[in-house]
Amino acid sequence: MAPTKKGILERLNAGEIVIGDGGFVFALEKRGYVKAGPWTPEATKEHPEAVRQLHREFLRAGANVMQTFTFYASDDKLENRGNKLTYTGAQINEAACDLAREVANEGDALVAGGVSQTPSYLSCKSETDVKATFKKQLDVFVKKNVDFLIAEYFEHVEEAVWAVEALKETGKPVAATLCIGPQGDMHGVSPQECAVKLVKAGAQIVGINCHFDPETCVKTVKMMKEGVEKAGLKAHYMVQPLAFHTPDCNCQGFIDLPEFPFGLEPRILTRWDMHKYAREAYNAGIRYIGGCCGFEPYHIRAVAEELATERGFFPAATEKHGPWGSGLEMHTKPWVRARARRDYWESLKPSSGRPLCPSLSVPDGWGVTRGHAELMQQKEATSKDQLKQLFDRSKTQ
Amino acid sequence: MAPTKKGILERLNAGEIVIGDGGFVFALEKRGYVKAGPWTPEATKEHPEAVRQLHREFLRAGANVMQTFTFYASDDKLENRGNKLTYTGAQINEAACDLAREVANEGDALVAGGVSQTPSYLSCKSETDVKATFKKQLDVFVKKNVDFLIAEYFEHVEEAVWAVEALKETGKPVAATLCIGPQGDMHGVSPQECAVKLVKAGAQIVGINCHFDPETCVKTVKMMKEGVEKAGLKAHYMVQPLAFHTPDCNCQGFIDLPEFPFGLEPRILTRWDMHKYAREAYNAGIRYIGGCCGFEPYHIRAVAEELATERGFFPAATEKHGPWGSGLEMHTKPWVRARARRDYWESLKPSSGRPLCPSLSVPDGWGVTRGHAELMQQKEATSKDQLKQLFDRSKTQ
Amino acid sequence: MAPTKKGILERLNAGEIVIGDGGFVFALEKRGYVKAGPWTPEATKEHPEAVRQLHREFLRAGANVMQTFTFYASDDKLENRGNKLTYTGAQINEAACDLAREVANEGDALVAGGVSQTPSYLSCKSETDVKATFKKQLDVFVKKNVDFLIAEYFEHVEEAVWAVEALKETGKPVAATLCIGPQGDMHGVSPQECAVKLVKAGAQIVGINCHFDPETCVKTVKMMKEGVEKAGLKAHYMVQPLAFHTPDCNCQGFIDLPEFPFGLEPRILTRWDMHKYAREAYNAGIRYIGGCCGFEPYHIRAVAEELATERGFFPAATEKHGPWGSGLEMHTKPWVRARARRDYWESLKPSSGRPLCPSLSVPDGWGVTRGHAELMQQKEATSKDQLKQLFDRSKTQ
Amino acid sequence: MAPTKKGILERLNAGEIVIGDGGFVFALEKRGYVKAGPWTPEATKEHPEAVRQLHREFLRAGANVMQTFTFYASDDKLENRGNKLTYTGAQINEAACDLAREVANEGDALVAGGVSQTPSYLSCKSETDVKATFKKQLDVFVKKNVDFLIAEYFEHVEEAVWAVEALKETGKPVAATLCIGPQGDMHGVSPQECAVKLVKAGAQIVGINCHFDPETCVKTVKMMKEGVEKAGLKAHYMVQPLAFHTPDCNCQGFIDLPEFPFGLEPRILTRWDMHKYAREAYNAGIRYIGGCCGFEPYHIRAVAEELATERGFFPAATEKHGPWGSGLEMHTKPWVRARARRDYWESLKPSSGRPLCPSLSVPDGWGVTRGHAELMQQKEATSKDQLKQLFDRSKTQ
Repeated sequence: MAPTKKGILERLNAGEIVIGDGGFVFALEKRGYVKAGPWTPEATKEHPEAVRQLHREFLRAGANVMQTFTFYASDDKLENRGNKLTYTGAQINEAACDLAREVANEGDALVAGGVSQTPSYLSCKSETDVKATFKKQLDVFVKKNVDFLIAEYFEHVEEAVWAVEALKETGKPVAATLCIGPQGDMHGVSPQECAVKLVKAGAQIVGINCHFDPETCVKTVKMMKEGVEKAGLKAHYMVQPLAFHTPDCNCQGFIDLPEFPFGLEPRILTRWDMHKYAREAYNAGIRYIGGCCGFEPYHIRAVAEELATERGFFPAATEKHGPWGSGLEMHTKPWVRARARRDYWESLKPSSGRPLCPSLSVPDGWGVTRGHAELMQQKEATSKDQLKQLFDRSKTQ
Repeated sequence: MAPTKKGILERLNAGEIVIGDGGFVFALEKRGYVKAGPWTPEATKEHPEAVRQLHREFLRAGANVMQTFTFYASDDKLENRGNKLTYTGAQINEAACDLAREVANEGDALVAGGVSQTPSYLSCKSETDVKATFKKQLDVFVKKNVDFLIAEYFEHVEEAVWAVEALKETGKPVAATLCIGPQGDMHGVSPQECAVKLVKAGAQIVGINCHFDPETCVKTVKMMKEGVEKAGLKAHYMVQPLAFHTPDCNCQGFIDLPEFPFGLEPRILTRWDMHKYAREAYNAGIRYIGGCCGFEPYHIRAVAEELATERGFFPAATEKHGPWGSGLEMHTKPWVRARARRDYWESLKPSSGRPLCPSLSVPDGWGVTRGHAELMQQKEATSKDQLKQLFDRSKTQ
Repeated sequence: MAPTKKGILERLNAGEIVIGDGGFVFALEKRGYVKAGPWTPEATKEHPEAVRQLHREFLRAGANVMQTFTFYASDDKLENRGNKLTYTGAQINEAACDLAREVANEGDALVAGGVSQTPSYLSCKSETDVKATFKKQLDVFVKKNVDFLIAEYFEHVEEAVWAVEALKETGKPVAATLCIGPQGDMHGVSPQECAVKLVKAGAQIVGINCHFDPETCVKTVKMMKEGVEKAGLKAHYMVQPLAFHTPDCNCQGFIDLPEFPFGLEPRILTRWDMHKYAREAYNAGIRYIGGCCGFEPYHIRAVAEELATERGFFPAATEKHGPWGSGLEMHTKPWVRARARRDYWESLKPSSGRPLCPSLSVPDGWGVTRGHAELMQQKEATSKDQLKQLFDRSKTQ
Repeated sequence: MAPTKKGILERLNAGEIVIGDGGFVFALEKRGYVKAGPWTPEATKEHPEAVRQLHREFLRAGANVMQTFTFYASDDKLENRGNKLTYTGAQINEAACDLAREVANEGDALVAGGVSQTPSYLSCKSETDVKATFKKQLDVFVKKNVDFLIAEYFEHVEEAVWAVEALKETGKPVAATLCIGPQGDMHGVSPQECAVKLVKAGAQIVGINCHFDPETCVKTVKMMKEGVEKAGLKAHYMVQPLAFHTPDCNCQGFIDLPEFPFGLEPRILTRWDMHKYAREAYNAGIRYIGGCCGFEPYHIRAVAEELATERGFFPAATEKHGPWGSGLEMHTKPWVRARARRDYWESLKPSSGRPLCPSLSVPDGWGVTRGHAELMQQKEATSKDQLKQLFDRSKTQ
């Protein structure tokens, strides 16, 4: 990091808005570099130019944080479920740090090292084992001197607390986000209580990422803030929601939707939905505002444009974007030029073009969580017999 | 071009399937490098790494054609409507050729130079003027020795014929696509008749691109084929549709939809929609199958995967994709693993997650076309007065 | 008929608007007096008070025609498919005439005797046999001295022409309506040609009833009018559409929709849809404007209210209706009082309250018509074997 | 009442299922005898045959209760808001009792006298005044010797308790239903607490009517039952929901929906929805199961058919209905005969035929309740100035 850059806590303490980046696994899956299912980040070694390009697009869109592309890059996950192992976990994590740092240096961005939920926890390994898994990734983050750490995508607050405790060992600032909604974590712990646990464990920034749409995530962070304040504690708040509408989800979020992960297109948020999100997050007192699965660079740009007044500047990518559609003033067709105005886009109710499809789905509801036999993670690919059992069961849901 | 590569006509004459790439303006707009409204391709000079990366992703997804990113790169368009002019048209076109060639050389792809509808024609300039405009781009394509030429995105067959005539002068193979639907071109010339005109003008490949969804475009190409065959002529057929569902469009296609261009998300096709599209195009006798606005690399990959049996191989990006969802066998959650099967995704009716939105829209219908005062193209940005008139008019539609 | 009443042709020749009634089989099915499937009108004998009450409601709503409830009351239909036979066809038809006359005498309404498509025709009986079937109903109509006759609900213009010929024998004015859409009759005869055939056979009034929504029916009558005028003939026009939205129907109309007949509720037209219908029918030059299946008395009232200015009076039932919602001025809740205005109801896009349902359906398309083995009508109830075959076949459509 | 008929409490104490009737105001509004807005029942005097016929249809559909058509027939309501006064409240109430008794005697049905929410309460009159209003209707019910009494459609439990207290004075069995949802009454009193108050005031039967769809009403009655049981009390439970889907309502129910009352058609429940409702109500321990606004006779028949096994008999109107669609075995078209089976109708997701409409609405939310100036009820018709204020306010909601 250039010596003049302010750290994450300095920024938040000063009341600055920090714009996060978007989710890498979904964006790179669509570009051809991540495999849906395992969702692992070998691309940092295999196709670094693709990862670098995505970092650059988010930087250009206004992001202040380059999160290392290390999601599910723990050794136990990389080995899991029949994935080939050309690179070690350490190699993948190191490459991720280098790519994030390279692009962060091109602008005003920090590098955040990220860890997430482990197969070890879901398979009921001990606290010691789970923490050892985090430790391997942390060793790389320390060696590469990332600016701060994020423990993200935890469904169980217990594991998130373990993660925060492990991350605190490094002495770096720690952010922690759960992928839960207003109903709380998979064991029924409320957002309020979850937040208190995370702050007490040492997280300076707490919030929500993934699994739900912006509206739901902001609502849940508000509950966390309420819990923290009621407990007389202090924290900064962050939110990194999906870029998919999920009004029909239950407690486990979008993975329960029948459309996950290959039929979510009709749910993708428009840039105007993002303006609304950014405003609501800001009004809720959240100052670290980013995205997760489904976010493309233009979604982050919309967040940065909505908050341009508060921040005092527009992102670089606004060079190629007329705020609120004003670029359409240069369109060939007069009726499209007539759409070059805010009230047009703010009041638009976009059609799906799919009259044979419903507007909401009934989510799966298997109610399976940590410890259940079907959640024990394995190295081998799922066998035909295992798949048949799953198919049969899904038909009776 | 490497000497061993077969040309476009050799491939089509041999009955091979040629996979096209996807639309660059929409994809790069979302990545932050193209401005919606002018839609011009200065990015080939300003941000070549972003253009190169997108070429690579389409190559990896299975595309056999790297189309030069020269859409709307005619001088009259670049000057048009208040756009700043850092680079000349020639510079932009040359950079586009170099980028396309560089990536084409990394695989089995050809380079196609593309020209499209001009402001000159819409503003009623003469045939000589319009052809002179094409000539400027063609000079670059000849100098850079592209493999073949595409005249694409024409709403009026008259201008398309002029384009084909100009392109034929180069001696290179010529493909020509209109952006029309079953109702014909903007002057009411039927698809059958349009196709005959284009073939007679010398196009060896004819078809449809942009403006409509795959279903509509395939249907329109079938009508073109019918016309050509009835006239006792011969041609190859190509189709490069939108990746948006447009069942509610009238003759001018998706630009008339209220969602164009910033609210089209709910209409984006899934990869499974693309399988259906590729099969229908193939069954219709179309052998050059690609995409236009809205296509992301994973859409092209789906086309290539659907036709993998006929072509005898999968695209490189299948490395990161289990066909028909089989990669989900490695997902953490058992109910997601239960979705690792073709019949699940083929029968899915994806929800919009937007219960307050309708499923279809009423398109704008201004009925303005070539020659109408409001379609006269100008260099200056639209004035406030002009915009006010447009807004007022749009309210009374 | 009271001596002062003007006949149907006198009214139409004088340029008056004639309001028809609504469909009895659907309305009485919901009230418990008609069985869906056979759809026969034994209720005229079994529950005359229910039939009389419905006549009265339509009269009160503004109808000028009391159509005898004799749909499917031909002997061959009454015997058909395992229906019990407590009453003879003659008894049912006579009772229907008496009920219609009794109520017609309470206001300014005429009595119309109706015949419709016969099982004999579908089972390929001869012209002589089919006409003999009509003759039996006609004998009753002559005896009871109805004011005019309607041949309605014909899918094949050939049978309709036979019906008109049979009806003309009575010397009474004859109206003839087909249940077809813009694609023409089941043998592909166009609406234009159908209309010419009917007028040439002697029908003074021609048009469309049932099977499609108002928009489609008005469109089809316009095509009929165009045909008649082009042939240099003269006629009056009538329309009696469904009160269900059917934008997704193919040539056989709403019976092909998966929702027919027990799931059509979400498609029911509002009274405001009826205002639009009445205006469009009137503007198309249609002067006999009524309804068919799905019409309830308030739908006919809406038609009469829309045309109140042209007719010079409101229907009796307006006593209990504030046109364009003005009755809401007396509602308890202030926000409902705020809906007491035309523009509110005209611009309302009513929600289905069914987010798990699509907005359009894919109609069945068996393509079975007259003469096909599966259409041979039988007296016996469908056997289990026959049903099993039908179920199996329906799954493979 | 014939001496052999069992009273309401005898039936419920014996574990019998009692089927209620459906709502009269909406059904008669559609037939032309009730005016939406005032919603008052002058039809008992003006058009007794229409009221009698509707009673008969519900009896035939299986109803065991003929509720007197005395909704809003209190003198203060009849005088309210510019309604003409041809008949006194006493006359209207007496006629209602006579009609209900006449039809009840034709079958196994009881007569229930009903009172409902008063303008006096909304205008903040005293307990004494409000009870005096009820007393006037009760005097008629006692004179006409109805079998039991129902206090229904109360938004405020306080007024409902006053009603129960007034009704108990007669010595007759008393049922009490609120028109609230799971969020409780307009002052925020929970369903559990409301139920306890009503039982303590002397109601032997408690439950919910109107304002919400069956699913929501059953859910709310379950909460009431839970409250009563937790308090160690005993009661019977009843439910009379809307026949409209209302998943998008807030605490004040369907009157807040933009579609109320003239655009609710797309929300009407099918008969199959009613089967589901009846089963759920039964499973929840509710034994008095009927309907309110939107219920037509065929809806009540569906309830009676679903519970035919438990009751040991089908309703009379099943004469004209093949349970689960079996009557379609006699349909002309083979593909409609293929729908003559339970699984077809149970799994149908009926389309709206309205692709330009959304599936859910945003309800009005004025938050105005008892005591607010805008809720003060007046005798005079709403003035133009008052209406203008309401319209303006509605636009800013």
